[in-house]
Amino acid sequence: MENNDTIVALATPSGESAIALVRVSGPLCEQIALSAFARNKSPSPRFAYHSSYRSQSGDVLDDVVYTLFRGPKSYTGEDVLEIGCHGNPLIATRLLEDLMSRGCRQSEPGEFTRRAFLNGRMDLTQAEAVMELIQARSDRAISLANRQLRGVFGRQLEELKQGLLRTVATVEAYIDFPDEDLPPEQKKAEVEAIRSVLSFCGRMIDSSKYAAFLRDGVKTLILGEPNAGKSSLLNCLLGFERAIVSEEAGTTRDFIRERVMLDGYCLQIMDTAGLREAKSEIEREGIRRTVELTEEADLFLLVLDGTKPSPTLPPEVLSRINSGNCIVVRNKSDLGQFKPLGDELSGLAEVSISATKGDETDRLKSMIVETIASHLAQNEDDIILVNARHNAALNELAECLESAVRNFEMDEPAEFIASELRGAVDAIGRITGRIDNEDVLDVLFSSFCIGK
Amino acid sequence: MENNDTIVALATPSGESAIALVRVSGPLCEQIALSAFARNKSPSPRFAYHSSYRSQSGDVLDDVVYTLFRGPKSYTGEDVLEIGCHGNPLIATRLLEDLMSRGCRQSEPGEFTRRAFLNGRMDLTQAEAVMELIQARSDRAISLANRQLRGVFGRQLEELKQGLLRTVATVEAYIDFPDEDLPPEQKKAEVEAIRSVLSFCGRMIDSSKYAAFLRDGVKTLILGEPNAGKSSLLNCLLGFERAIVSEEAGTTRDFIRERVMLDGYCLQIMDTAGLREAKSEIEREGIRRTVELTEEADLFLLVLDGTKPSPTLPPEVLSRINSGNCIVVRNKSDLGQFKPLGDELSGLAEVSISATKGDETDRLKSMIVETIASHLAQNEDDIILVNARHNAALNELAECLESAVRNFEMDEPAEFIASELRGAVDAIGRITGRIDNEDVLDVLFSSFCIGK
Repeated sequence: MENNDTIVALATPSGESAIALVRVSGPLCEQIALSAFARNKSPSPRFAYHSSYRSQSGDVLDDVVYTLFRGPKSYTGEDVLEIGCHGNPLIATRLLEDLMSRGCRQSEPGEFTRRAFLNGRMDLTQAEAVMELIQARSDRAISLANRQLRGVFGRQLEELKQGLLRTVATVEAYIDFPDEDLPPEQKKAEVEAIRSVLSFCGRMIDSSKYAAFLRDGVKTLILGEPNAGKSSLLNCLLGFERAIVSEEAGTTRDFIRERVMLDGYCLQIMDTAGLREAKSEIEREGIRRTVELTEEADLFLLVLDGTKPSPTLPPEVLSRINSGNCIVVRNKSDLGQFKPLGDELSGLAEVSISATKGDETDRLKSMIVETIASHLAQNEDDIILVNARHNAALNELAECLESAVRNFEMDEPAEFIASELRGAVDAIGRITGRIDNEDVLDVLFSSFCIGK
Repeated sequence: MENNDTIVALATPSGESAIALVRVSGPLCEQIALSAFARNKSPSPRFAYHSSYRSQSGDVLDDVVYTLFRGPKSYTGEDVLEIGCHGNPLIATRLLEDLMSRGCRQSEPGEFTRRAFLNGRMDLTQAEAVMELIQARSDRAISLANRQLRGVFGRQLEELKQGLLRTVATVEAYIDFPDEDLPPEQKKAEVEAIRSVLSFCGRMIDSSKYAAFLRDGVKTLILGEPNAGKSSLLNCLLGFERAIVSEEAGTTRDFIRERVMLDGYCLQIMDTAGLREAKSEIEREGIRRTVELTEEADLFLLVLDGTKPSPTLPPEVLSRINSGNCIVVRNKSDLGQFKPLGDELSGLAEVSISATKGDETDRLKSMIVETIASHLAQNEDDIILVNARHNAALNELAECLESAVRNFEMDEPAEFIASELRGAVDAIGRITGRIDNEDVLDVLFSSFCIGK
């Protein structure tokens, strides 16, 4: 075990507050509890005690509540001591200093969770879910991360791995008997098993797109002519005055990013410079950047002044919008009769609102939510928080599996097939952090008889 | 009992972190633990459980560790539920919202401690010590607040009160017997007892000055001619570059406040504009403000360029400095022979340093610490964190006691004396928050026989 040192960290943000929490993990926990809290016997595990905290030099540093968690039934799998002190950064600092003078080491970022992984308390996907949970910015992202923390992804991968290991075992049994060949019906069954893993793998790779959607927010671009009411719409969605609304055309030169939560989805809203013939160089630059932003947007809110004829949109913009990703927002419904919508915009979902008066803005919100939901082709409950690291491993997994299928079909030697399959098992192992070649042997010896 | 509602608050600062702590206090705690953590029996008190937190609608909001503290053995004296969730402000918000939907109310600032006081878990001086602890900015202030949290001040006041109540009882026994009079020797003893309370009271009022010293920091003014090295000295004390040091005279136009910790004392350092004939209006204004600052400073560091003749200081400044509050810092010891010190500065403590090279700056630091320590006329262990509220009550207490002594000496009727003494007891009660006229009756009936 490499972790025979004891680490310590402030687990709560620094600042004035009711409580600050200092966490210690490692073999020194019990000894620290005995001396800092002047105990003559070990504290009962998981029991919250109220006590003075005495520094090594005997000074009372604070009045605290502490709890000892005994390994392996603790977060890290080691002994963990949690100390809740008064929420004063200076007190927390003094506690940390004292704990370091008692032999603890300031922890590295993520080191508690790293220890939890190394001690087998969670797999890598769960360890990643911890950070996802802490950084999640929408309810949907929290719920995805919670599912992942419970090990859903890890268990699915484990099942895939077990299936592949059975195939590896079958194939490897033939390596030592070059004269024998896999019976055709068994070969067919194995190829089918691999294909089903491949299709699962494809669904997970697709999932990464939706996961980014739910995790980072739906990139929403507010587009339209100057003075159509783009900034008013943004303010109305945000519920507070973020953008400067002005009567003068061309106020919003740069774009603004704001997050807004609608029905648990996070929207990253980008308000843009108006699309029109620019009069100044700065405005031209703003419009150029707006067109650039259309490339990365997931959702478009095209704001039109309903009392005016439909504008002519730049072709770069028109080519990006469609009925699945764009809502036409006809603004200024309070200012009189609307002109008919231009032909090029027909077929798009539309809603008439008054952004300044708030009329029908609830309807707009529910249209946005529907559009996002329909974007998520998969059932939301099947979406996995696939990150870039997983994605790379999944792509490698798919490659190995495709090679294995080709090798099977071309009757290549068993060694070649087995090698690709082992590559696939390793790729899965890299995702969960459990690469273990013993596994292959275990399955081989348990399901096959060596006498054959 | 007014507190039959259940309050909830985030107890840690808002921000991304490992853990956030939500605290609940009141009668709903048990019921919440049963339903949010899907339990079929009450959690054991003070035992830390790991569980999913389910919202009222059944969604898993987070993976948490929770602990139920049973009243009256809890911080507030009521049932308290502490929930440690992942340190994501959005998750904390969702937990708070869910707890409010279950009938909790967002707590007012200080309401947990207020309940602790109302439920008799601490007196007012201890409740105040909680805030002092959280806001303390020096080790000495933390140690003072810790002592107060343990109830030292409250106990001292309680003793005084018991003494006064005995005197009240003695005096009141004579109210109903106008023909009888207190025997002279007993009168003398009572007056002496009151005088000893008065002198204790005076020491506590003095203590308020030292308390402010230790709590808010020693106001330290760096004074001197332009280019003597005032900003370099500040930087050297701070250990980092805070003030802009420049070769051009008159750079520090405004003053700078910084806190620096020396041997557990907090210094509030004010760097000032140089004292010299100002050339511009802005500089003149800076110097005027420096002279103003001398009024509020506790400690002066008079920085001189040792290679130049002693400067002529404004009389307003000279009249404020003395051997007890000023250290002459002769800077630029690395730049050659020092000129003798001017007569008007003789008798002041002095030290030769090089602020830029750091020579002898440690000696300066220890001289500063000595000067502060000698300022604290009282033994530091006897200093009480007397705040403005206490101070007002202590002054009222002193007034009542002085009147009582006068009344005794002028043989005024027992009613008059008793009334002043009751005023004194009330003043003490206002400090600890325990005004209780039952007390007077209790002592009266227990120490006197009604048959007399």
